[in-house]
Amino acid sequence: MTDPLASWNEGPAKEAILEFVARTSETVPEVERVAVFDNDGTLWCEKPMPIQLDFILRRLAEMAEADASLRDRQPWKAANERDYGWLARVMAEHYAGDDTNVQTLGAGIVAAFADITVDEFEASAGDFLRSASHPTLGLGYLECAYAPMVDLLAHLRANGFSNYIASGGGRDFMRPISEEVYGIPREGVIGSAVALAYTPDEHGGAITRQGAPDYLDDGPEKPVHIWTRTGRRPVLAAGNSNGDIEMLDFTQHTDKPYLRLLVLHDDADREFDYVSSSEKALDRAASSNWTVVSMKNDWASIF
Amino acid sequence: MTDPLASWNEGPAKEAILEFVARTSETVPEVERVAVFDNDGTLWCEKPMPIQLDFILRRLAEMAEADASLRDRQPWKAANERDYGWLARVMAEHYAGDDTNVQTLGAGIVAAFADITVDEFEASAGDFLRSASHPTLGLGYLECAYAPMVDLLAHLRANGFSNYIASGGGRDFMRPISEEVYGIPREGVIGSAVALAYTPDEHGGAITRQGAPDYLDDGPEKPVHIWTRTGRRPVLAAGNSNGDIEMLDFTQHTDKPYLRLLVLHDDADREFDYVSSSEKALDRAASSNWTVVSMKNDWASIF
Repeated sequence: MTDPLASWNEGPAKEAILEFVARTSETVPEVERVAVFDNDGTLWCEKPMPIQLDFILRRLAEMAEADASLRDRQPWKAANERDYGWLARVMAEHYAGDDTNVQTLGAGIVAAFADITVDEFEASAGDFLRSASHPTLGLGYLECAYAPMVDLLAHLRANGFSNYIASGGGRDFMRPISEEVYGIPREGVIGSAVALAYTPDEHGGAITRQGAPDYLDDGPEKPVHIWTRTGRRPVLAAGNSNGDIEMLDFTQHTDKPYLRLLVLHDDADREFDYVSSSEKALDRAASSNWTVVSMKNDWASIF
Repeated sequence: MTDPLASWNEGPAKEAILEFVARTSETVPEVERVAVFDNDGTLWCEKPMPIQLDFILRRLAEMAEADASLRDRQPWKAANERDYGWLARVMAEHYAGDDTNVQTLGAGIVAAFADITVDEFEASAGDFLRSASHPTLGLGYLECAYAPMVDLLAHLRANGFSNYIASGGGRDFMRPISEEVYGIPREGVIGSAVALAYTPDEHGGAITRQGAPDYLDDGPEKPVHIWTRTGRRPVLAAGNSNGDIEMLDFTQHTDKPYLRLLVLHDDADREFDYVSSSEKALDRAASSNWTVVSMKNDWASIF
């Protein structure tokens, strides 16, 4: 028999997954087998910066290039000057609970792609993801998905689970590639969203991105949007950072098996080694019996 | 061979559906076979008032019973006095474009079920739908689903379509019964929603209804939420009122078949005979080649 988790090393994490999937398949009705995954840092690489941030920065730099008045304003200033330090600080502040600069960044992100249709945005995101490369790993961005997580998604699917992406990243950024990379269809992608509006025309109308956020799918918003979309409490959740704590917490039952996975980035040789923005989640993993997945020890291959 | 649309009479509507399903199954990839349905007046009876309104009025009347200060305030006043005329006027004003009183009604609806968990709301809605009866038809509410539409949903499902409910009614009101009545799983229900919030606790936390609406899934919001949830433009849409115009309009393609159905309530003997709140939709059906489904002529049985 083929090993369904061939890119995982033997060990407690692999064992916990195989045992959980076998038990759930025997005892839980198929419709209740809902599994949710954070994307950045859980399903694919998020360092040195989230892939979507690279996409956005290129667009902001283009805008600053075209309009000098933007070059003194954040986040265009950072994009124009390739000041990744400012961006790293914003993300660190966010995970520490201070969203002042996240709002500045968010306003820029929203403005960067306002007033285009969802089809235009999708074509732009899809083109970027299919052509751009990771700055240091020597891989195209679509090759930055973690092979062990792709194995896990396939194993769950083969056992009647429905997989969803519940990411802080943009829903409409991931949709063009979610089926191809993860085997997750478009309707399975939950993520942050901007406000949309429908404008009628003679050819069926268009849905256009508005210059305002709808919601940031992070922290306590993750359980809300998982519930909103699926109508269920998941039986499996996987994350890697403080923004995933509530989603992992929400994945808990009294009457059926459940599994919470926390991916630990501890492999400087093959990927990156960091705990920044994950400190609280790691504490919770220890106190709440979440299964920590060590990239270094548990993964035979990473990409 | 069994007739998949046995509760439909032979005629142009049945013919259009069978021809569309056959052609789509041959030429359109399964993942693109997305079908969307309004609920009230399209999948089940909405007269003398939407079923959810009965549920809400009972709750508002209970509240007015318990608290005299509510009895002079709308919508508690109307609920307490069984003044269905006020409610009918509010709905007629809404479909005529005036939402002043809809907001008053909406605020009452939101208050009626604020601060309870989604699980509590679901149990309450499910209990009501399984026990309450239609005021004049002599049927339990769950028997008020239209047999021909249930046939159509099954025929679509058998041909690889994904069916979604895109209703102005409440998503969380329909979810407890959507699989049982329509064969549509919980995640296939799109509808109006109130704001939700996640509160952690030691048992996985709870999602609680907040005292504010999230969105009313009607008119131009229907295409937006269909897209938000499915990431696709549907190939089939069915509605019955002015609030469905944009959804039917959105269901249009240049490269594949599509079908728009508008249910016409013209059967006073077996159901109801009305065009109120549907006048503009009927005009559009005539000018845009939508397929009008006459309950009187096209449906062999209704329930």
